[in-house]
Amino acid sequence: MTEPLTHIGKSFQRIDGVDKVTGRARFAPDLRFDHMLHAGLIRSPHAHARVLRIDTASALQLPGVKAVSTIFEVPKVIQYWFFLRTEKKKKEIFLYDDIVRFIGDPVLAIAAVDEKTLEHALSLVRVDYEPLAAIHDPEKALTETGVCLHKKGNIAFRVEKAFGNVEQGFKAADIIVENTYHTSKQKHASLEPIATCIANFESSGKLTVHSSTQLPHWSQHYLAEIMGLPLNRVRVIKPFTGGAFGGRCGLIHGLEAMCSVLSKKTLRPVRMSFSREEDFCATESRHPMIIRMKTGVSRDGVLVANEAEILSDTGAYGTHYIGVLADCLSTGVGLYAIPNYKFSGTAVYTNTSMAGALRGYGNPQMNFAQESQMDILADKLGMDPLALRVKNYRKAGEMDPVLNERILSNGLEECLEKGAAASGWEEKRSRKLQPEFISDGSIKKSPIKKGIGLSIMLHGTGAARALPDPGSAFLMINSDGTVNLHTAAADEGQGSRTVLAQVAAEILGVEFESISVSETDTDITPLDCGTHGSRQAYCGGLTVRDAALDAKKKMLTHAGNVLKVKPDALKIEKGLIFETAHPANAISIKDLMQRLQIQDMGLCTQIMGSASGIAPAMPGYYGAVFAEVEVNTETGEIKVVKLTSAFDVGKAINPEMVKGQIVGGGVMGIGFALTEGLIRKDGHILNPGFTDYRLLRSCDAPPVEAIIVESNEPTGPFGAKGIGEGCMVNVASAIANAVFHATGVRLTNLCMTPEAVLKGLKP
Amino acid sequence: MTEPLTHIGKSFQRIDGVDKVTGRARFAPDLRFDHMLHAGLIRSPHAHARVLRIDTASALQLPGVKAVSTIFEVPKVIQYWFFLRTEKKKKEIFLYDDIVRFIGDPVLAIAAVDEKTLEHALSLVRVDYEPLAAIHDPEKALTETGVCLHKKGNIAFRVEKAFGNVEQGFKAADIIVENTYHTSKQKHASLEPIATCIANFESSGKLTVHSSTQLPHWSQHYLAEIMGLPLNRVRVIKPFTGGAFGGRCGLIHGLEAMCSVLSKKTLRPVRMSFSREEDFCATESRHPMIIRMKTGVSRDGVLVANEAEILSDTGAYGTHYIGVLADCLSTGVGLYAIPNYKFSGTAVYTNTSMAGALRGYGNPQMNFAQESQMDILADKLGMDPLALRVKNYRKAGEMDPVLNERILSNGLEECLEKGAAASGWEEKRSRKLQPEFISDGSIKKSPIKKGIGLSIMLHGTGAARALPDPGSAFLMINSDGTVNLHTAAADEGQGSRTVLAQVAAEILGVEFESISVSETDTDITPLDCGTHGSRQAYCGGLTVRDAALDAKKKMLTHAGNVLKVKPDALKIEKGLIFETAHPANAISIKDLMQRLQIQDMGLCTQIMGSASGIAPAMPGYYGAVFAEVEVNTETGEIKVVKLTSAFDVGKAINPEMVKGQIVGGGVMGIGFALTEGLIRKDGHILNPGFTDYRLLRSCDAPPVEAIIVESNEPTGPFGAKGIGEGCMVNVASAIANAVFHATGVRLTNLCMTPEAVLKGLKP
Repeated sequence: MTEPLTHIGKSFQRIDGVDKVTGRARFAPDLRFDHMLHAGLIRSPHAHARVLRIDTASALQLPGVKAVSTIFEVPKVIQYWFFLRTEKKKKEIFLYDDIVRFIGDPVLAIAAVDEKTLEHALSLVRVDYEPLAAIHDPEKALTETGVCLHKKGNIAFRVEKAFGNVEQGFKAADIIVENTYHTSKQKHASLEPIATCIANFESSGKLTVHSSTQLPHWSQHYLAEIMGLPLNRVRVIKPFTGGAFGGRCGLIHGLEAMCSVLSKKTLRPVRMSFSREEDFCATESRHPMIIRMKTGVSRDGVLVANEAEILSDTGAYGTHYIGVLADCLSTGVGLYAIPNYKFSGTAVYTNTSMAGALRGYGNPQMNFAQESQMDILADKLGMDPLALRVKNYRKAGEMDPVLNERILSNGLEECLEKGAAASGWEEKRSRKLQPEFISDGSIKKSPIKKGIGLSIMLHGTGAARALPDPGSAFLMINSDGTVNLHTAAADEGQGSRTVLAQVAAEILGVEFESISVSETDTDITPLDCGTHGSRQAYCGGLTVRDAALDAKKKMLTHAGNVLKVKPDALKIEKGLIFETAHPANAISIKDLMQRLQIQDMGLCTQIMGSASGIAPAMPGYYGAVFAEVEVNTETGEIKVVKLTSAFDVGKAINPEMVKGQIVGGGVMGIGFALTEGLIRKDGHILNPGFTDYRLLRSCDAPPVEAIIVESNEPTGPFGAKGIGEGCMVNVASAIANAVFHATGVRLTNLCMTPEAVLKGLKP
Repeated sequence: MTEPLTHIGKSFQRIDGVDKVTGRARFAPDLRFDHMLHAGLIRSPHAHARVLRIDTASALQLPGVKAVSTIFEVPKVIQYWFFLRTEKKKKEIFLYDDIVRFIGDPVLAIAAVDEKTLEHALSLVRVDYEPLAAIHDPEKALTETGVCLHKKGNIAFRVEKAFGNVEQGFKAADIIVENTYHTSKQKHASLEPIATCIANFESSGKLTVHSSTQLPHWSQHYLAEIMGLPLNRVRVIKPFTGGAFGGRCGLIHGLEAMCSVLSKKTLRPVRMSFSREEDFCATESRHPMIIRMKTGVSRDGVLVANEAEILSDTGAYGTHYIGVLADCLSTGVGLYAIPNYKFSGTAVYTNTSMAGALRGYGNPQMNFAQESQMDILADKLGMDPLALRVKNYRKAGEMDPVLNERILSNGLEECLEKGAAASGWEEKRSRKLQPEFISDGSIKKSPIKKGIGLSIMLHGTGAARALPDPGSAFLMINSDGTVNLHTAAADEGQGSRTVLAQVAAEILGVEFESISVSETDTDITPLDCGTHGSRQAYCGGLTVRDAALDAKKKMLTHAGNVLKVKPDALKIEKGLIFETAHPANAISIKDLMQRLQIQDMGLCTQIMGSASGIAPAMPGYYGAVFAEVEVNTETGEIKVVKLTSAFDVGKAINPEMVKGQIVGGGVMGIGFALTEGLIRKDGHILNPGFTDYRLLRSCDAPPVEAIIVESNEPTGPFGAKGIGEGCMVNVASAIANAVFHATGVRLTNLCMTPEAVLKGLKP
């Protein structure tokens, strides 16, 4: 595109903004249907047990109780969509058995005419369990032989990869550091509790499910398999969604499948909605990891070897454990050009709620280890941590050894430069940061110590090299030149519908307001992998671009007939199609469409455009975060004063929305660093609510300065690549490095608590 | 298609059958939305008046009353979609003024929180009228100079056409008959009262209207114009519909526009639903016509001249008066090869409820006159009425002089032959039909006289030569080979979704059950003219065929890549794609789709197909009806004993549904002949309910023997053309001819009442 862009790089307001601020947007919990039944779950009080007997007789005798479904008939979903590829693998996605594996694991569901009857009915159910020994510690899962969570053992997955020769690498190193890092069991903690579903199985044999899935088409595929239905009989509709962050990357444990079976039994719509406590205790979380990392560097600051050994706790069942470890691998190995790298990862089962996908998908854990290591090395080298990064990061033109793909764009150096300038890195890093104050007439040292730290990250856009990752779009041009765009690029609140409308408007040469974007509905919107992997601006943008180009080509052919020139002699600007050489020879899109569709009765043709396919690459996007902290050496409290986050997004299609992502990711990253972790004891979750699971409130959040760097990814739509996940990935590591700068205390466990700071400060 | 057909010509059950018989199908009156308001109309008690003042102050003070809209701000719709073609004409569709023109004409609408409040509010409104002189008689509309219904006068439209030289034609005639025929103001009388709408104008500026329109896209266009909205901000959704028959061919007078304005004022969904009485009194009807017809024939039975002069009463406003007269012209002139034809038609305004489109659209009126004339001529010639038709009807290969199009298929002769055989025409026509019975030991004549009559008809399929008549379809093939088909071919109950699914299944080589057909929703389904003019099997079938062929082509290209042959070496049968020369080289559609979409991660492509355009022709379809009657000469009662209806539909895609149309059309035709007419006095409708407006009940309906004739229309999908309207068109004329055969009484007015029979029997 050499033309000046009219719609790309402009911060249009989000198309669902008015609906949301006026409260008219309908989220899943808002939906009600005629004759709807209410369903709820009986959950296991045991961390590990066999269900011997379920007695629902009394419950079923209660007037208004309509049906029961149990784990004897409804499977658990224990894999992700990579397993959809073959008939054999597809079977492995589902587990039918009589074992419950964590406190909160669903045992059965009841559907009743109202919530009161439901509650009463649930209280009448008796379940007999045979308690089994439980494993709460992932390291014990490796060694414990007497307790086995799954048939194949307690190890869900193991991966080993080696690049170069790590042993020789370490021999060549002048400095080697080795540390073990622990990360927390973070929750998505989206504004809307993560699980509400209304399933409606009709007598015609069609199942319609309203659920806020990020992956409408894969949810459809899972449900088709579970219910034994063809895909044209399973319709998944995604309502407005109050945040997702990976928590809706598949079916929700115990939700859609139970509802669908209950609906099939009753031929009525069945609604189930988890409470916030159920959300915290019984839906997926981030994988807590233990990462041992050994890193070697030469005296002049060149990384020569790295070894990472990861133990990932996937909880009672798996879904994304393979992908999450794969992401640790690709982001860990990809970021720095280290010639010798040995990576091993093991995912184990424990008797706790499942881990799954959460923004960053393994990368925040890996980055915390890697970027802490870098800071430690810089300190030992007496080198500016920034310079150490610049020296070692993998630059554009180099090959990514994991993806086996050449890096075509990498704006990391610009991110570091701009972030350093905006954060005052050089000055703050060098001067004495500890403030002094006057008390009793004398100058005293404050207990507050100030510090600044930085970290960088790489995250892949989409999953073209890793998973089936289709994207599709379809659009129709109306007789007044406005456009209806159909895409299943599920918008979970990130604003992708707005971005995709901008792409369509840019290509078609119409106003932004002329583009309407459909709801996400598998009956209507063509196959799309959905929202995951920071993919929608890039993958969604590519397919919308191509669908619009398809329509544009047809439009220009018709315009050429009218204007009596060849289509390639034409241009579109601001809704006008004209001959480039003779701009007066022109027709507006509106007039052309009116003519095609209505006026010329010999044509009566609507222009449609479609595109479907996989993205040509999985480009990395990059970012540098500079965290400024104040650590109270008396209380141990860490206060983040400011984040400066510079991210290379290729091209910001909607700069304000990119900044919104960066700010939001920054705040979520601070939570991951300092406060957000489920506290567990003997399989119980001790903080299942916002009182004790502390999200940053707006008054807790520091300013986040968002800086956009544009490296122009050549495979992307108008140069764009991802942003959604990466902006939270390296916040915790930057904070840890800032705390070290302020206090000399190196914290290797997340969350970083005041207790840990105080412990570190002790001589 | 030389292959044996797998899905065409098979009577699949209708795809919405289960939903309908289980009561789960949601019709417009079933719909409810959160925060929905209820609206109702104040209607004029005057046949003609000026609205001087509307006082809604007391009503608006009533708690729960939310908004009022009046005719001062909401236009009447007074034209049809031909006027959408230019910006200037588009304005003429709408009339804003302060005049009410019939008893029941809407003056204002109120929206309130519930129906009780609404009722109370309506009673508080005061409207001051200045009564104006009214015209109730269409003939007076021509002559009355003091009363003027519309600015342009009382004549809405006038058309004159001449073919050949009619004066010379009559000179050459041996026999000339001239008669005047009157037809009734028939109502659609659909099972579901015709008018229910829920309009929802959202704060985002988007209007969604649920309404059972036959023409979703044109309704969308009208509303966009009225509301000043672009088309991507107007969404029309058509729920299941309980019959339409032309009554929903546009916006309903006072319904959608009023609701939309009320919703815009309140930003809440607004529902309005007409009662059966409102349906009868204030929605469109068939055009009552007075037809003077003069027909000349040579002694050997060759028609030489015809003159038709029509006065059509379009009521207080017009919508379809042009089209209806045009259909009188095309069907009147088209049916018989009469070299000299003079046609004149005048549509006038009267102060009665509007006339509009109703199954047959002018043709039933015209056919009643024409086919009565033919019977009279046959009688005068002493010729078999069947032979007279065979001699004169316009045969395949001849040119249609109105459409200027060669007739490519015409199975009328076969219809006559098969109908005659099945009805026992020859025997019943020739033998003495009056039964005798024994009473008091002697043979007496029964008062019952038996007769048999026939008539033929031509009706056009679609409107390709007359109106903007686009058809479009889009489909997506799922990863299991099932298909989602999007079409706005509105199914009003006639079963077109089922027929279109059969077409898609036939082309794609998949099972019928694999095809799902979308709801009709202008946000989703591409531009389609909707359902009118018997067009959906033909026009809808053509676009679905072409969209499926588009998808099939892409499918075979991919299959060729897999099977390593050229696409044209492949065939599809029963879901299997194989090399014609080596059938073992094969892949199932399901496996291919799975591979394309999920398994082959380098593709991840969904196959979509689309098509849009106008049908290549407007083929006539034909039929012969044989009516057997018993006339009670003492009471004048006419009893139809049996109909034998043979129709040439080109190709019956779903024979049972074609037969359903023929049976239903037969019963509606009997109603038109004998009982269905609004009785009017001084602008009042005296029979606004099913007690006094008599539809045939199932116990009243005689057997209808439906005979399908297939002439294989070369432009049609698999040879198909229309059926929906024609099967009711010539029933009344066949009955009139049978009554003449039984009694010698020639009835020229519809409805044919016992009084008229008795009057005719008097010496």
